Amino acid sequence: MRSVTGRNVLIGAVIVSLAFGVVIGRFTGGLGGGGSLASIAESRGMTVAEAEGALKVFTPPGKYDEYVMISSGGQSGNIYLVGVPSMRLLKSIPVFTPESWSGYGQGADWSETILAEGSSDKQARELKWGDTHHPGLSETNGEYDGRFVYINDRANGRIGMVDLRDFKTKQIVDLPNMQTSHGGVFVTPNTEYVHISSMSPMPQTADGYAPLDQYKEKYRGISSWLSIDQESGKIDTTASFQIELPPYTQDLADAGKLASDGFAFIGSYNTEMATGGVSEGGDPIEKGASARDFDYLHIIDWKKAAEVAAAGKTEMRNGMRVISLQTAIDEGLLYLAPEPRSPHGADVSPDGNYIVVGGKLDPNVTIYEIGLIKQAIADKDFEGVDEFGVPILKFSSVVAGQVEVGLGPLHTQFDGKGNGFVSLFLDSAVSKFSLGPKAGIKAGEEFKLLDNVKVNYNIGHLATTEGDTVAADGRYLVALNKWSIDRYPVIGTLKPQNFQLIDLAGPKMQLLADTPVGYGEPHYVQIIKLSRLTSAIDVYQPGTDPLTMAASSVATAAGEERVERDGNTVHVYMTAMRSHFTPDILRVKKGDKVVLHVTSIEQTADATHGFAIPGYNLQASLDPGEVVTLEFVADKAGSFAFYCTEFCSALHLEMQGWLLIEP
Amino acid sequence: MRSVTGRNVLIGAVIVSLAFGVVIGRFTGGLGGGGSLASIAESRGMTVAEAEGALKVFTPPGKYDEYVMISSGGQSGNIYLVGVPSMRLLKSIPVFTPESWSGYGQGADWSETILAEGSSDKQARELKWGDTHHPGLSETNGEYDGRFVYINDRANGRIGMVDLRDFKTKQIVDLPNMQTSHGGVFVTPNTEYVHISSMSPMPQTADGYAPLDQYKEKYRGISSWLSIDQESGKIDTTASFQIELPPYTQDLADAGKLASDGFAFIGSYNTEMATGGVSEGGDPIEKGASARDFDYLHIIDWKKAAEVAAAGKTEMRNGMRVISLQTAIDEGLLYLAPEPRSPHGADVSPDGNYIVVGGKLDPNVTIYEIGLIKQAIADKDFEGVDEFGVPILKFSSVVAGQVEVGLGPLHTQFDGKGNGFVSLFLDSAVSKFSLGPKAGIKAGEEFKLLDNVKVNYNIGHLATTEGDTVAADGRYLVALNKWSIDRYPVIGTLKPQNFQLIDLAGPKMQLLADTPVGYGEPHYVQIIKLSRLTSAIDVYQPGTDPLTMAASSVATAAGEERVERDGNTVHVYMTAMRSHFTPDILRVKKGDKVVLHVTSIEQTADATHGFAIPGYNLQASLDPGEVVTLEFVADKAGSFAFYCTEFCSALHLEMQGWLLIEP
Repeated sequence: MRSVTGRNVLIGAVIVSLAFGVVIGRFTGGLGGGGSLASIAESRGMTVAEAEGALKVFTPPGKYDEYVMISSGGQSGNIYLVGVPSMRLLKSIPVFTPESWSGYGQGADWSETILAEGSSDKQARELKWGDTHHPGLSETNGEYDGRFVYINDRANGRIGMVDLRDFKTKQIVDLPNMQTSHGGVFVTPNTEYVHISSMSPMPQTADGYAPLDQYKEKYRGISSWLSIDQESGKIDTTASFQIELPPYTQDLADAGKLASDGFAFIGSYNTEMATGGVSEGGDPIEKGASARDFDYLHIIDWKKAAEVAAAGKTEMRNGMRVISLQTAIDEGLLYLAPEPRSPHGADVSPDGNYIVVGGKLDPNVTIYEIGLIKQAIADKDFEGVDEFGVPILKFSSVVAGQVEVGLGPLHTQFDGKGNGFVSLFLDSAVSKFSLGPKAGIKAGEEFKLLDNVKVNYNIGHLATTEGDTVAADGRYLVALNKWSIDRYPVIGTLKPQNFQLIDLAGPKMQLLADTPVGYGEPHYVQIIKLSRLTSAIDVYQPGTDPLTMAASSVATAAGEERVERDGNTVHVYMTAMRSHFTPDILRVKKGDKVVLHVTSIEQTADATHGFAIPGYNLQASLDPGEVVTLEFVADKAGSFAFYCTEFCSALHLEMQGWLLIEP
Repeated sequence: MRSVTGRNVLIGAVIVSLAFGVVIGRFTGGLGGGGSLASIAESRGMTVAEAEGALKVFTPPGKYDEYVMISSGGQSGNIYLVGVPSMRLLKSIPVFTPESWSGYGQGADWSETILAEGSSDKQARELKWGDTHHPGLSETNGEYDGRFVYINDRANGRIGMVDLRDFKTKQIVDLPNMQTSHGGVFVTPNTEYVHISSMSPMPQTADGYAPLDQYKEKYRGISSWLSIDQESGKIDTTASFQIELPPYTQDLADAGKLASDGFAFIGSYNTEMATGGVSEGGDPIEKGASARDFDYLHIIDWKKAAEVAAAGKTEMRNGMRVISLQTAIDEGLLYLAPEPRSPHGADVSPDGNYIVVGGKLDPNVTIYEIGLIKQAIADKDFEGVDEFGVPILKFSSVVAGQVEVGLGPLHTQFDGKGNGFVSLFLDSAVSKFSLGPKAGIKAGEEFKLLDNVKVNYNIGHLATTEGDTVAADGRYLVALNKWSIDRYPVIGTLKPQNFQLIDLAGPKMQLLADTPVGYGEPHYVQIIKLSRLTSAIDVYQPGTDPLTMAASSVATAAGEERVERDGNTVHVYMTAMRSHFTPDILRVKKGDKVVLHVTSIEQTADATHGFAIPGYNLQASLDPGEVVTLEFVADKAGSFAFYCTEFCSALHLEMQGWLLIEP
């Protein structure tokens, strides 16, 4: 203790203790806190950074996360809600694919109606599957308003709408004239339109077929502008229109905002119009589609397009008003700008001035400026036209800057402080870079690489908190990594994806936590402040049909339960209440059609019931106040013990009844 | 600084700092660690307990959880894997319900085969839905061995098997003679048998129908003993047998182990045989089924039953050998013991001596002892027989003790240190209590309530780490709460369930974290040490058929891709490799039958591809080395852009091709 070393330790300890005294003194629980924390972290073999990560992401029991991430589920065809920063999975919302927890597509009328209406003649089947890619939250004045979310089906060229009152899908629209879609979904700043564009071009023929040697003549891309009913959030196809595009592969898209409001930007690749054919002596598509040094950013003046559509300068094509490619050119609402090869993202900065494009085979992000674009359009500063006659703006006239960010840049998000964050697929990293003066960056500091953090592995999209909006706040970033390899134990041949949460609060990005995603491949997410989800309801009004959010005509009140036979059809008006179904014995004959109207007469939040019949593939969720109708032919005789599928009360197991189908 | 207060603060700080010095000195990252932790926790408004919870549950990026929880998904019809203690969702494994991420039930041959074979004539439909309830991991010497997991379908009386090599479902067996199942799943200590019992009794008639006034005569419960092929894990129904039981509602069950090896225990309720009929002047089932003060614990000598079956003392019923109720009585392999009203759990302690039953309308757990049971059987110490002639052991002769634990006791799990943990549905709590001397508890300390912790809310099952086995280690407990109400923000009318992680390391239980479950209602879980999952593989051998785990006869090697037409059937032998399908152009005529054999020729872990065709509802996952066959009739003409649904490489978007269906 008297040695120099000993004294230094003591002095050091006093200094530390003083610093601690201040911190710990304020820390709830008093002086013991910090010590127990360090001790626990040590016992679990954590580094300081890891322990800090733990404390930064953990949301204590009963407390709420500050943000909710709206994540597409990819091939699982749904939406996931994830709390941020805890990264806990709050909910799955089925959209294109049935899901039996919520009863969606498992027999209940309203969900079956949505799925059935979501398949037009364009499809070969009634679709029970979709590949959700890009969620688009509704906006007011360029900020998320927590009313609706739209999401596309990459496989089948469709779009779904989820109502953020009950967080259920209310509509699927199968878009004519386009078959697939990818990243072309966005919502305009006041939800005037939801946009969805085609990915692979589709033959604009009566039967959707054309041989590949007619690719340039018959195949076309489509930009769809879907008009939104502001009350219900539903898409009104009669007020919507499409714009025909060249047969490139249209890709990521974004709406202009503030400085660029009224414009939209759609990246593209395969302007080579390669169609593959490796077994026929052709190049593989991935080679053919990467031949040119430049592809095209599509610039659309959508307010002008809406006027052109309103003026009737459209043709009807499969029930949709279409502005032909020639009209779009003639009316000056479509322009192209060169993008470095195989571009991927096309993201508009919160101030609306910059459009950032990642060229995945180019180490730079290319930053376009709306002022330059508008000026070039006004000046007809074109380098020429493409082979379909669309004017091409001069690259040097519309680009404000480029930043070398690393290998494989894809998507960019923003912090609202003048910075962009770009995902680097090949580098498995995220780079932070500065935008230009119009985003508040000082002269000399613009368009610079600022930071880089490794992610694990093969990042696709990334999202910052409210980073798609004018209110981007730069709090967190989520990296959506496609591979996880060694990040999780070996649990079979199919590996989870890997979400990584990155702290943006400091000058340097800090990786906080990994979250496995083993139930789909989320493609893109948006992150909204929880405080904006003000439309959410806890309980339905008694007797609600979720499809209309109004009173159901077949709602049944307590005491009014009954069975009505009409020939071979048996209508059952049933109620569900802890802990019984009324009636609880149903007697029908084999061959009868049974129409079962079940009303949950609960009004207590979370008093959920379910309804399932063995052997008949039927399962409905009955949220408090909800009415569902299940219809089936009693084509198998037997004594079937129907039951409540949600553990509703102490006597939940006794919440069953008998469906007796007499031979 | 010189004041008394100041000095005390300083002295206190020095003392704390010395204590800290020791702790922090060992804490990786040095002296700053503890301070930064306290500071972060404070800035996020955490209490000390919350911050400690954060550090106890967090699993840092790239590190692995110590345990994997195998969770049923309830109405979602699948299994979830969750890491413990981080509670991160690692994977969803579809069993009874299709799932498109993994391609299961979305068209690929092997999965469609399993689903089709999983529906017998007992069902009214080919089932595409199930309600998973009780997972049962395979065991060797009473310990989990990480080879297989079995899980029942509560709705339809079926059982599925998941292979823990690739973590995929390999078999669904639809059990004859029983319609529904609930908690009657367990694996015997060396996986000799997997047991599943009926829930609602089923008419043992040719068509499965009998009117309710024949309930006592025609309806019967069933205990199924499914023989397991030790190589494949598959159920061999020809070597299996069933035991007929009275028409009670058989419920939770457990296998004996060690002291009780060879016995099985099945709780029951509704020994009143109530059938409801509220609209016909009857009592609701929940009242009728709760009338008697006692129900019956069924005690089965399964080794004797296996001998009886081997001796041919069975009758064939719908293809299954059945030991009739009378034979079971005559052969002395079935006994009853009274259980306090509406019992729920029936759980065997790790040492095998005690069977703990929770009576959900009784505040006690009742603890039976196998030694007493064996003695009572030997002594024919019966209080009589039930109305079907089954001997009833005297309650006082077989019960070692009761502990008053709180309201609504359901299920009990163990720590391997002589203690039980029981879920209390009505109290929303978990109580810890001591077992008796045979579990190592000292005289005077036995059968005592030791601790109680509130959970949020309405707990059903609970699970301790390896708590179902002889190796229960008492590290963690997970509470499976059915309601979450205010624990999460309002995100619509359907609320998540709530998993809560409780630390068992100290003398008192400590709640660590809440995890929302918004994608199903997990019913029961088992928690296995990660180190036991040694069968897991990373990549399939080239050309593997997952159904057989052997080489597929239609596997295609690179360079051998081809299209073979046979009349109207077109066989395509395709390979998938980053970043192309070969062939990438397919030309067929409308009306052709297309049989598409796709082989992933990848051998890199995580190099997953998918395969989807727009409009045709087809989506397969192609794990490295996997072969799948998709079959469809090309009944809609068109140019369809098929594509890879997993983001596999930088040129993933280019991994597409054209299916041209000529009109």
